Amino acid sequence: MLTTQIPQLLQGDFRTLARLITAVENTPEHAESLLSGLPGGSTRIIGITGPPGAGKSTLTDALITQLLASNKKIAVLAVDPSSPFHRGALLGDRIRMGAHFSDPRVFIRSLATRGSFGGLHPEIIGISTLVASAGFDYLIIETVGVGQSEVEIASLAHTTVVVLVPESGDDIQTMKAGLMEIADIFLVNKADHASADRLVSALRHLAGKRAQKSRDWVPPVLKTVATEQKGMAELVKALEDHQNSPGMEKKNAKLMVEKAIRLISQRRMRDLDVSRLQQLVTQYMQAGNLNLYRLIREFEENGKL
Amino acid sequence: MLTTQIPQLLQGDFRTLARLITAVENTPEHAESLLSGLPGGSTRIIGITGPPGAGKSTLTDALITQLLASNKKIAVLAVDPSSPFHRGALLGDRIRMGAHFSDPRVFIRSLATRGSFGGLHPEIIGISTLVASAGFDYLIIETVGVGQSEVEIASLAHTTVVVLVPESGDDIQTMKAGLMEIADIFLVNKADHASADRLVSALRHLAGKRAQKSRDWVPPVLKTVATEQKGMAELVKALEDHQNSPGMEKKNAKLMVEKAIRLISQRRMRDLDVSRLQQLVTQYMQAGNLNLYRLIREFEENGKL
Repeated sequence: MLTTQIPQLLQGDFRTLARLITAVENTPEHAESLLSGLPGGSTRIIGITGPPGAGKSTLTDALITQLLASNKKIAVLAVDPSSPFHRGALLGDRIRMGAHFSDPRVFIRSLATRGSFGGLHPEIIGISTLVASAGFDYLIIETVGVGQSEVEIASLAHTTVVVLVPESGDDIQTMKAGLMEIADIFLVNKADHASADRLVSALRHLAGKRAQKSRDWVPPVLKTVATEQKGMAELVKALEDHQNSPGMEKKNAKLMVEKAIRLISQRRMRDLDVSRLQQLVTQYMQAGNLNLYRLIREFEENGKL
Repeated sequence: MLTTQIPQLLQGDFRTLARLITAVENTPEHAESLLSGLPGGSTRIIGITGPPGAGKSTLTDALITQLLASNKKIAVLAVDPSSPFHRGALLGDRIRMGAHFSDPRVFIRSLATRGSFGGLHPEIIGISTLVASAGFDYLIIETVGVGQSEVEIASLAHTTVVVLVPESGDDIQTMKAGLMEIADIFLVNKADHASADRLVSALRHLAGKRAQKSRDWVPPVLKTVATEQKGMAELVKALEDHQNSPGMEKKNAKLMVEKAIRLISQRRMRDLDVSRLQQLVTQYMQAGNLNLYRLIREFEENGKL
């Protein structure tokens, strides 16, 4: 029974947490009684996203160092397969990340992505509930800033940090349509680069325009050099400012509703008999009948028999 | 009754099609009997996606011209809000697109995106069923290549064309994680640009690597100059080659299953009482209880009373 492990989880035992995450990942249908028996907790979820090569992992690393200085307990979930926090690349990058991997205040875990679009693990809400119950102050989720994941991280994290680098001139364009909408904090990393200031002012211009619409929170644009730990105190301050901002309670409620909708959808779809659906599709195709609406009506009606 | 309009729709009447699309967009809950009464059809769905500025609209325009030369009937749905096919920018770009807007073989319609992530309209499957029933040979869907939309277009289109331009050096990086996975055909547009060949060979290298994994279809990398109608015959040939490729039947079945799952999910979630859910979230938050699993269990159980 997974529920017998709850006491150790609440004490923050890393091995128990790791084991329960694996259970939730692999057999979510058995984990519901575990998850509904947990207290949750006040863990702050920070999403770190941005295009490949922006230095998200180095930034995560530097942020951990900064938070440890004020003795915080930190969990990290890496979803970006190219991240050195991620299992695949882990061995090669051991030296740089070594210190944090052996620190008893830092729990690090890589997560498989769902499909090939960089989306978060389907059980990410359950996994973050486990982390929160284990009493961490922060859960940092590092994702690759493409496709599905940027949408998903915005519905999951209390604060989403979008990391960019000065070189990427046309990122501004892409952001307008995507990353721009989800950023609570912009970081221009590698800010010692010559063209950093131009990117910073372009971002401030965009952030200002968005602020005119929402009025709740103007995403600050910070400059960091993560490899040298520069700008990290300012980042932690911005995270706290965002947490204490007037719109935060409303945002929390909105996040809870979105997560609830996602969980309800997963619950209602859990019993879906995909192989029966596949058979029905094959039948319809062979009959030359391509009307999906009739197909799903037949599927749902037979399912009730 | 919407169903009384089916005969005119089957005759391909543009006004009826436009009216029924509006009905499906606005009141999907009333459209199910209409949609399940339609024959569907063999319309080929082509997704055109790529980063902003890659010339997707000009490409779509040039593709229409090419297909019209072999007397095809074409429907275009523009989801990219910056597209000149889109309502917003339509008036300003009338001159360039004018010929196709008045051509009786071309139906053009802009669609609102869902939320701010460039996702397709939630009723896009219903809308494409209407188009298919109206007897079009091709349905071209133009989307902005960011966030949600690249994932969605890949689950909808028979053939996904990813349009890139030589300038965007770091697009290759992004593609690895996102666009790369969804492309059935790569187009290097503005191929008269000096660095086009470098991008072409980089893409061929990536496409070759992917082919080693799947073996079904190696995405060809084509060069176009859409403004001068260059490379369009080759694009139409590649579209036909893809349609006739050995893996296509399997892909069609997979698409049907994915669409069916999406429709089933929408159907099962349609009755969700969001305002009751919001109330429950507020209650839980005020009580300091953040366990979503208990919350949704209570929500679902009360919903059945």
